Amino acid sequence: MSQREFVALGTASQVPTRRRNHNGYFLRWDGEGLLFDPGEGTQRQMLHAGVSATSITRIGVTHFHGDHSLGLAGVIQRINLDRVPHPVDVYYPATGEVFFERLRHATAFHETAELRPRPVTGPGPLAAPGAPFTLEAVRLSHPVDSFGYRLVEPDGSRLLPERLAALGLRGPDVGLLQREGRIERDGRTVTLAEVSVPRPGQRFAFVMDTRLCDGVGELAEGADLLVIEATFLDADAHLAEDHGHLTAAQAARAATEAGVRTLVLTHFSQRYPDLDAHLAEARKHFDGELIVAEDLTRVSVPPRRDL
Amino acid sequence: MSQREFVALGTASQVPTRRRNHNGYFLRWDGEGLLFDPGEGTQRQMLHAGVSATSITRIGVTHFHGDHSLGLAGVIQRINLDRVPHPVDVYYPATGEVFFERLRHATAFHETAELRPRPVTGPGPLAAPGAPFTLEAVRLSHPVDSFGYRLVEPDGSRLLPERLAALGLRGPDVGLLQREGRIERDGRTVTLAEVSVPRPGQRFAFVMDTRLCDGVGELAEGADLLVIEATFLDADAHLAEDHGHLTAAQAARAATEAGVRTLVLTHFSQRYPDLDAHLAEARKHFDGELIVAEDLTRVSVPPRRDL
Repeated sequence: MSQREFVALGTASQVPTRRRNHNGYFLRWDGEGLLFDPGEGTQRQMLHAGVSATSITRIGVTHFHGDHSLGLAGVIQRINLDRVPHPVDVYYPATGEVFFERLRHATAFHETAELRPRPVTGPGPLAAPGAPFTLEAVRLSHPVDSFGYRLVEPDGSRLLPERLAALGLRGPDVGLLQREGRIERDGRTVTLAEVSVPRPGQRFAFVMDTRLCDGVGELAEGADLLVIEATFLDADAHLAEDHGHLTAAQAARAATEAGVRTLVLTHFSQRYPDLDAHLAEARKHFDGELIVAEDLTRVSVPPRRDL
Repeated sequence: MSQREFVALGTASQVPTRRRNHNGYFLRWDGEGLLFDPGEGTQRQMLHAGVSATSITRIGVTHFHGDHSLGLAGVIQRINLDRVPHPVDVYYPATGEVFFERLRHATAFHETAELRPRPVTGPGPLAAPGAPFTLEAVRLSHPVDSFGYRLVEPDGSRLLPERLAALGLRGPDVGLLQREGRIERDGRTVTLAEVSVPRPGQRFAFVMDTRLCDGVGELAEGADLLVIEATFLDADAHLAEDHGHLTAAQAARAATEAGVRTLVLTHFSQRYPDLDAHLAEARKHFDGELIVAEDLTRVSVPPRRDL
């Protein structure tokens, strides 16, 4: 798996099909591994996808409908069975605390790992100690309390080896320069800006069960990779509205308005025998890289934007 | 599916593998459908096996380790989603009441079906209203409270059409004869025995996590079909004893001693890359029909014993 890659573990809404497991999504981001919305069977889908329990550093649950959260019980037990050596932060709507606790202690098992519950009480930044990014929750619109998640890497700088070499800077000096932003060399101050170019941070957004609302756009804004539910087609927009879901066209338009680069659609209703129409409908509204996810579809986070 | 058939939905112990889901077993018995030990992912395995939620009339959980019970949450939610019109009895160790309640209400869903909890407080017959068999629980030996289940069809009689015809008995008269055991005809008493032959009842036994103990033999006694865990091989008998499990040889010997006709082994440790040795080891100790279960293996209950 490359350094920043997304894999769909399951892509069905409500009930599984022969081809599609309940939801489950994994984002590998350098040393971090974020598991989103583990539905029933996620533990086994991880095996099929080559995702170990040890690679999970954080878990985000958008809402406590079963198809987005029943797999939490098995994933937590597996994290303990495998004696995952690092703490795992779990984000979920605070109003679902009772469900989180039931799933966390669903049956008897031996606790060996440190799980850090991080109930989300409202929109805003989330505690993510040690993470090389910020995590944010944004409120969505669904019959039960639902939050989408957004990962934002801060802008940084990319060092230029030839300039460092010309100034004779290496090893500890480079570390100091990166930390302090400047260093004294040959009687003058060398700044970080002289030996680097700005490196734009990347963004990932995860938008599950919601009808169209401001939160969708807020999450998607500037995302290099957006994973979003597209349960229905526009022809069934009344169902989408009634049940608190999106259509493929709505998801695609929101992505375009937000400047999304790679768009992954998922969470399909089993009423559609195939997804050709989802692809066609979304394509009409979105010009970038567009993927209609199957189970085990892998998508790389696209290369950094140019400046 | 034939009238009395068993299907293995999942056959892995502890953790799923690429080929084996967590546990899950379904027995179709005329109009009844008994689901045993639904591990995570059972809902989807049912789909692969062609078992609908509506076909479930009873659920039996042997014990509350996750690999035997986490799937209960999804199965219960599916029973409600599908608006199953008949009540579903759920049997489970009473000491695991707290786990049952957590799994039953693991997340928010709309309750439409009647679930009847039947906590098992000790060995003995179980309430099974309307069932054409008796159900019994027998205590097993495992680190947590564990009960095996046994289904016993009462002995009955098979009517002989030619004798009924010779006596001019038909329709309501036959019904009366079956209910009362006798009927007046042409000035004399005709007994049921005159117009029928005895029909031996059939037995099914389900033996999950346990080390060898009296309960194993008690459950298996006279079973036409025995489904039993065979987690380990005899070479690893110390592991079996330590963790409260059986070896293939132990399971096979118990089946032979109990006069079992068809033996299904399951619940295999993932330490074994294949199960050839399980088959060979069991074969040494059991002469009857022997099946090493794969996921979705189907086994018919054998024809009735001759008298």
